[in-house]
Amino acid sequence: MNINSNAIATDSNLDIEGLFTEGFSQFDGWIDEMCQQFLKSNDSCDSMPVNELKTLFTDTNIPTQQQQMGQYLDEFQNHILPYCSHLASPTYVGHMTSPLPNFVSQLSRLVMILNQNMMKIESCRGLNFLERQVLAMLHKEVFHLNEKDYQQSVQDSNLNFGCFTSGGTVANITAMWVARNQRQQSLDISESRGVIIGSELMHYSFDKAADLLGLELIRIPVDEEYCISLPHLKEALKEVESKGQRVTAMVAIAGTTDFGSVDPIADMAELAHAQGAYLHVDGAWGGAMVLCDEGKVMLSDIHLADSVTIDGHKQLMTPIGCGLLLTREVTTLGSIRKEAPYAIRSSSLDQGRFTLEGTRPAMALYLHAAFHLIGKSGYNDLLSKSLARARVLAQILDDKQEFELVHSPKMNLMVYRYLPDGYRNRRLTESENEYVNWFNVALQKRQRSLGNTFVSRTKRTTNLYPGQALVLFRAVMLNPLTTDVHLETVVNDQLSIAEMLEKEVRNQSLNFGEA
Amino acid sequence: MNINSNAIATDSNLDIEGLFTEGFSQFDGWIDEMCQQFLKSNDSCDSMPVNELKTLFTDTNIPTQQQQMGQYLDEFQNHILPYCSHLASPTYVGHMTSPLPNFVSQLSRLVMILNQNMMKIESCRGLNFLERQVLAMLHKEVFHLNEKDYQQSVQDSNLNFGCFTSGGTVANITAMWVARNQRQQSLDISESRGVIIGSELMHYSFDKAADLLGLELIRIPVDEEYCISLPHLKEALKEVESKGQRVTAMVAIAGTTDFGSVDPIADMAELAHAQGAYLHVDGAWGGAMVLCDEGKVMLSDIHLADSVTIDGHKQLMTPIGCGLLLTREVTTLGSIRKEAPYAIRSSSLDQGRFTLEGTRPAMALYLHAAFHLIGKSGYNDLLSKSLARARVLAQILDDKQEFELVHSPKMNLMVYRYLPDGYRNRRLTESENEYVNWFNVALQKRQRSLGNTFVSRTKRTTNLYPGQALVLFRAVMLNPLTTDVHLETVVNDQLSIAEMLEKEVRNQSLNFGEA
Repeated sequence: MNINSNAIATDSNLDIEGLFTEGFSQFDGWIDEMCQQFLKSNDSCDSMPVNELKTLFTDTNIPTQQQQMGQYLDEFQNHILPYCSHLASPTYVGHMTSPLPNFVSQLSRLVMILNQNMMKIESCRGLNFLERQVLAMLHKEVFHLNEKDYQQSVQDSNLNFGCFTSGGTVANITAMWVARNQRQQSLDISESRGVIIGSELMHYSFDKAADLLGLELIRIPVDEEYCISLPHLKEALKEVESKGQRVTAMVAIAGTTDFGSVDPIADMAELAHAQGAYLHVDGAWGGAMVLCDEGKVMLSDIHLADSVTIDGHKQLMTPIGCGLLLTREVTTLGSIRKEAPYAIRSSSLDQGRFTLEGTRPAMALYLHAAFHLIGKSGYNDLLSKSLARARVLAQILDDKQEFELVHSPKMNLMVYRYLPDGYRNRRLTESENEYVNWFNVALQKRQRSLGNTFVSRTKRTTNLYPGQALVLFRAVMLNPLTTDVHLETVVNDQLSIAEMLEKEVRNQSLNFGEA
Repeated sequence: MNINSNAIATDSNLDIEGLFTEGFSQFDGWIDEMCQQFLKSNDSCDSMPVNELKTLFTDTNIPTQQQQMGQYLDEFQNHILPYCSHLASPTYVGHMTSPLPNFVSQLSRLVMILNQNMMKIESCRGLNFLERQVLAMLHKEVFHLNEKDYQQSVQDSNLNFGCFTSGGTVANITAMWVARNQRQQSLDISESRGVIIGSELMHYSFDKAADLLGLELIRIPVDEEYCISLPHLKEALKEVESKGQRVTAMVAIAGTTDFGSVDPIADMAELAHAQGAYLHVDGAWGGAMVLCDEGKVMLSDIHLADSVTIDGHKQLMTPIGCGLLLTREVTTLGSIRKEAPYAIRSSSLDQGRFTLEGTRPAMALYLHAAFHLIGKSGYNDLLSKSLARARVLAQILDDKQEFELVHSPKMNLMVYRYLPDGYRNRRLTESENEYVNWFNVALQKRQRSLGNTFVSRTKRTTNLYPGQALVLFRAVMLNPLTTDVHLETVVNDQLSIAEMLEKEVRNQSLNFGEA
């Protein structure tokens, strides 16, 4: 044997191995400081105009020489950190993100060091079983099978209560993939184009699913509660049949993105199953409500679904990258099973046989931690308070003639709009609404660029003016640290910006059509 | 206005808000200790049999009451941490995972606190531009456009140098999706089934892509260097044409999963482009080699691809969840563009318009940090040493009559097998090879369950015995802390296990067919 012990060359100018052996714990305090700096922001972002901000990120060369950690952190603190969105601010109530419980940040150090790959048991070992356990825990809250069923299947690696995905989009795509493959196998309809059918409020991930899978997407109008209109749905089903097509999957939404409305799951399950179609519930946002008392009532029929999407990173307080698809039957994911003798053996315990994705991080650890450190009581408390907070905001808005509420909040999010002076307390014409639309866009843009508070905006047909899409503000109540006072701050910020804009309109420094 | 300040109820038994305000820094030391405990493992896993391990993860109830952090960490340290795969051990050389540079663990705390969502600029702001910058940096190493092109496009949000994905699988699927949509648009061939064509060594993510997208997957034999056979490819192309089908995408592999071989990219680009097909390079493993001198030679034609997959979490030292698809043309991702007025407006700067996934974490931050803290010199050093390490292992194995090398390593991974006594230095019959296959499976399983060292295994047709798939060990050289001595330890561990097994075979406590 003739091994050259110098075969692994070393470059004396570099200390690359040091990056793997040094602990960097001397930077703990500095990183703590940066975390605090971010968490203490009570505005929504810095005020640098986007066009200026862009110019800070134009060097497209990977540096040749390695920087020292201190140098990098300095750059991070001064040139990156200030320009992040202040999602943790209690007056940032515009998107489905919130500050995370602090244990997430601590645990992440361990999760990164472990670097387990959930695709294969050989690279995640015990976590393979922990992930299955966590899936079963959430499955139980949604589908309520018997304890015996859970004990039988929880560690049977050929059966699944569902899978983790990078997010709700991949969970929804996976559900549609399953449905298509099941349907094709049972009906041999590979030649005719299958249909995904759901309300017009279906998330755009279903556009992606339909495009990927070669399915047709049919969007049905909603009723006055922003739930799918059953008469319209039934009519559409007849039309699909008359064209010789088949419904691959029906989609019920549990918590629409803008209105928080919940489709009639029981009725839809009956319609879907009557023709052998798959019923998927998109609960990316609202599915988590099964963990609170009010939500259990709203979602009393969710167990009738064939599968349910829930995002851990929305209301379950895990970091981004934690989607879940839960399947009622433990054999459902079998229809997308893929194996390879060099990677994912059929005889293995590898969960990668049943996922769209390959290599996956151990997001299950964050959900496991949240289940233990928040607990069912904690989730009930968090979610109930979020629902209450939405009612508080609705009350604040309803009391002010300047705002028009589109609906009373069903869940912890809502849409509303501002009515400029002269456009209040009366029926508006189509062109007047166009003006109000323009004004609301201008208001949200100005609010965003000033960066004190934040709500997002959407454009939807409502039952205020059927047939005309209205620009609406969208407020999402997710941050547990948002108080009534913060909500008033957000509303008052909008009022003062509106006043500013109305003045600009009057003196013609801002004109209809400009933003 | 009538706001009930008690509207947000509080449960005095719970301190849920505390989870969002307390810093938990008192646990820093404990978590450090756990990180060290894991990093000091120099075996491959604990020795608990899998069937016993399973039984630790069977409680499927979310706890009702919240646990305290200390209680949870205690449980974590005693019942989770010991059972993870010891991927960071220098004698774990079996999969494409490695210990991460320690700055990742530190930075992760910040990334979690920031919780930015890269889908929308309103929830990631400056990081939207940083992500584009990082994509351009890697794009430049692969495609070498002019500096002017980079400056023109780096912050033009309607153009893309590519996108981040959760991993190589989603990157490959995205590439095939792009190819199919481009091809359908240009040829109006929506009725005939498109074809993905590549070598038999294509990753199984292409099986997923073909299934999802309704394409046919054709796998072409490889030559004696484990690269796609060009004569066979040309023949297959003719056959596809004669059937009236069209090639949607051709896939060249830059670093096959088992052999590290690189397909003839230039020849394939010519063949693909001659018929208007898309050429994708799957460089999930090997694409990163553009960052080292030897690799630049191996991948000198990679810029001819229409797109390239590279996994940050393989050789670029980022945590799992960091895949990249790089596209030669800045308009390529336009063919999968999706917009929604309520989420991803067409007039926005949102990168979510161009991705299969929706909400995405800021993995770009880890790659940005790695680019700065490792630098091009550092990557050159790391990758060169990994290549050298593979040659060292090959030499060790080649010097021992007990092992059969299947190929000299092209990249930093290789396959080989053990030959039991009596099966060495001669041509084996098919049934003898079946016995050797069985023996190698038994050896790898025993090695895995003893948990001292780890290599993975695969099953492949090789040019040692054409027509017969052989069970092979697969060693991956990725851990920068693996020395020559560790490699000898792995090999010696296999030798002593083999001796143990041969003894068991002789005394018939282990019989052919059993494992």
